[in-house]
Formats: sequence, C-alpha cells, structure tokens
Amino acid sequence: MKRIKLVVAYDGTNYCGWQVQPSGITIEEVLNHALSELLGEKIQVVGASRTDSGVHSLGNVAVFDTNTRIPPEKLCYALNQRLPEDIVVQSSCEVSGHFHPRRCYSEKTYEYRILNRKLPIPTLRKYTYFYYRKLDVKRMQQAAACLVGKHDFKSFCSAKSMVEDTVREILSCTVERTKEDFIIIRVKGAGFLYHMVRIIAGTLILVGIGDLAPEEIVRILKQKDRCKAGPTAPAQGLTMIGIEYGSEL
Amino acid sequence: MKRIKLVVAYDGTNYCGWQVQPSGITIEEVLNHALSELLGEKIQVVGASRTDSGVHSLGNVAVFDTNTRIPPEKLCYALNQRLPEDIVVQSSCEVSGHFHPRRCYSEKTYEYRILNRKLPIPTLRKYTYFYYRKLDVKRMQQAAACLVGKHDFKSFCSAKSMVEDTVREILSCTVERTKEDFIIIRVKGAGFLYHMVRIIAGTLILVGIGDLAPEEIVRILKQKDRCKAGPTAPAQGLTMIGIEYGSEL
Repeated sequence: MKRIKLVVAYDGTNYCGWQVQPSGITIEEVLNHALSELLGEKIQVVGASRTDSGVHSLGNVAVFDTNTRIPPEKLCYALNQRLPEDIVVQSSCEVSGHFHPRRCYSEKTYEYRILNRKLPIPTLRKYTYFYYRKLDVKRMQQAAACLVGKHDFKSFCSAKSMVEDTVREILSCTVERTKEDFIIIRVKGAGFLYHMVRIIAGTLILVGIGDLAPEEIVRILKQKDRCKAGPTAPAQGLTMIGIEYGSEL
Repeated sequence: MKRIKLVVAYDGTNYCGWQVQPSGITIEEVLNHALSELLGEKIQVVGASRTDSGVHSLGNVAVFDTNTRIPPEKLCYALNQRLPEDIVVQSSCEVSGHFHPRRCYSEKTYEYRILNRKLPIPTLRKYTYFYYRKLDVKRMQQAAACLVGKHDFKSFCSAKSMVEDTVREILSCTVERTKEDFIIIRVKGAGFLYHMVRIIAGTLILVGIGDLAPEEIVRILKQKDRCKAGPTAPAQGLTMIGIEYGSEL
C-alpha cells in the first residue's frame, strides 16, 4: 500500500466546490470516480483545501492510498486521460504513510483577483471579480499589513462556521496593481477559516474605496464580530495557488 | 442621422464567430438585436474584423447609423445592459458619415497565445492554445522577422478564401515568452487574409519545435501555396486586440 499525493488544478466554474455533497457535482467526486476506474480499487481522496463553489485552483493537494503498480510519477498522466478538461492533475508522487494534507503543517497561498476598470472584459468574467469604483492600492496595502501575524480572525470567518479556535497566522498579505488593471491580493498563511480570504478581499475593497480607514483593520480584528468586516467577495475572483508542506519548507 | 462607432470586446467561445450566418448565433446578430431593441429602429452593424468561431476580442470595431437622441458616449452603457455577459461594448462615439470600418485605412493588432508547458491549466483552456512540446522562442522570433513587410501572403491564406489580391503588409510581428509559460505572438498589419494569423501561429510553432528553419519562411512566402505553410492554429488562442484608424494614427 502506498500513499500518493496529487497536485490538482481546476476551473471551479462548473463545480459545487471541492467536497462531496448531496446537491451538484464536486471536484473530489470526479477525482474519486476517475481514480477508482483507473486503478480498479475503491479510491477516496483527502483534500487539503476544501474550496467553495466557483473557486479555482492551480495547486490544491489531495492524497489517497493504493496498491497500484503504476509508477507514482506517471499516475497523473494516466489520470488526466480520464478527467474532464476543467480538472488537470499537475503532478503525482509517493509520500510517507504519515502524511495528511490537512493535519500536517503547511503554508497555503491564495490569490484574489479584482478587475478594476470602467467596464468588464468578457474573457475574464469567470476568473476575476469585476469592480467598477477606483481602488486605492496604497490604502489597501496599509490595511493588508495589519492582517499579517497571529490574530483571532473571528471577524473574518463566515458566521456559518462551527470552528471554535479562530486564531490563525497570516505570513504575508500583499496587494498590487498590474498594468492590465488587475488588483491582485495574495495571502499566505498556515491555515485559513471558512471564507477568510474572500472576507479579507471584501474588506480591503472597502478600504480601497475609502469607506474604511486602513488602520480600522486592527479594530475589526479586536471586535471578533463577522458583521464588522466587509462583505464576502465573490468566489470567481479566488484561486488556490499552492501549498507547501513542513518537510518541503 | 449619425454614425456611431463601437469598440466591442467578447468571449468568442459560445459564438459562431462575428458574421451573421444560417447555423448558430453570432456576435453581429446579438449586437443587431440589442441595438434594434434599445433604439427602436432596425439596426444593422458593419464590423471591422469578421472573427471566426471561438476567436476572442478586446477591441473589434462596429459602426451603425441611427436617429437616436441618446448621447453617443452614453450609448455603450445602455447597450451593455441588454447584452449577455460575454459581449461588452467598451466605448461608443460619433464618427463621420464617411467612416467605414473595413474600407478606411487601419492597423489591426492580433495576439495569439500559446501555453507552452508540460500540462494544461484548466482556467486558461478557452483562451490559450496548449502546446506540450518545448518551443524555442529565439527561432520563432527570427521567423517572425521574415514576415514583416509587404508580401504576397497566399501561402498564409486559407485555401477556402476567394480573395484575389493576397498581398498584405505586416507592420510588426513579435514573439515573447512570459514567466507564466505563455508564448505570445503579436501581429500588427494593415489588413489580413482569412486565417492568416492562425496560419502564421501554426507555422511559427513548426519553427519553434525545429521542424522548419526560421529562414524557410522566405521560401514559403515565395511558393504562394497554402500547403507549404504550417497548420491553422486553433481559434481559442487568438484575440483581436484593437484597431487604429488612419485619422487616429
């Protein structure tokens, strides 16, 4: 029996997120089905980031156990033959039987993309959040800096979440404007709460239009109240970029 | 009566190209319908670039005549309300009654995007041509340089085309590799033949993998035979970037 780690890229547009659920098709389900057919065993992957409906990925991680004789590095090519074109496994390798994609220490990077111009661009509509009002990147950068470090992020966690410990550490949070009118928010952290990156994006947008002062982020963190932060920015702007695990860091 | 010029961006994925035709919906048709409903007149646009099925646009141009009292610059906002999200008019303005989007001198810019890496990226599948084999950009640049100038591009014109004069002028043709593994071919010209940019892209790819020497482009041009050039690269890699007209140059 060996444990295989997959790095999975997907276009989340047509899926109800990562995790198997009663209504609608999910990434996890499609992977389980394709792997089970390929390997002739009942396969059940365990994912690292359980992304929401409409969220994209360049480097989410999933593991599963198998008795296959297919060389681990070749597995991704055979698997991609059986996957739809909106899910592509970027690599496969064998890992230790102790490796768990959520329990092992990891640093996850997410990117939230805003298209900040007067009119939308049709080819980007599913991969960016179009926002008409001019955003002040300097202000957003100041606010982003206040999020870095170990804080109680209860204000930045969906009220629906049942998790008790809402302390998380953000390792970096940067905001940049590109010449193509993108505003890119990049957040790296050792664990995130439900909707955390999208609430951060929604709050930084309020700072960018002047509805919040950058330093008010500090107050919002202290209040530990979801209502004090900004709205949850739409799913299509978010991409799971990649995950580095303890042993790789 | 005034003549209005529109700059039209679209995601060509779900359309049978620009021009009205019996089978399947086209960009022109959707514009005609939305404009006719908005203005309460029978509107028939004339397009500059009659892009193929699956080809995208950031800046195609269309004109039409109208008696409307809506200020020309405001027209695009009212029109976008009636357009699907994969077509967005970027600007509207009044032009002279002599202006014709195809007959007036113009310089058109197209971009052909190749994703050149080992595995495809799902979110880019409709907006790039995924090509697995490593492309040598230096060679492609040398070949591209041979295309610049006034030449008979018969070898780079679809055999289906009925056009008699196949002499065209390419003003610039550049190839670059980005850090995200894109290879971007940018072609600017005063007029193009049917499939010309896609055949240029298909031929530059053959140069990039070593199947053709860069200087063989000169021979291919001289042979005036479609069979001598490379294949027509797929539509989804092509984007009509923009058009500058004589008076604006």
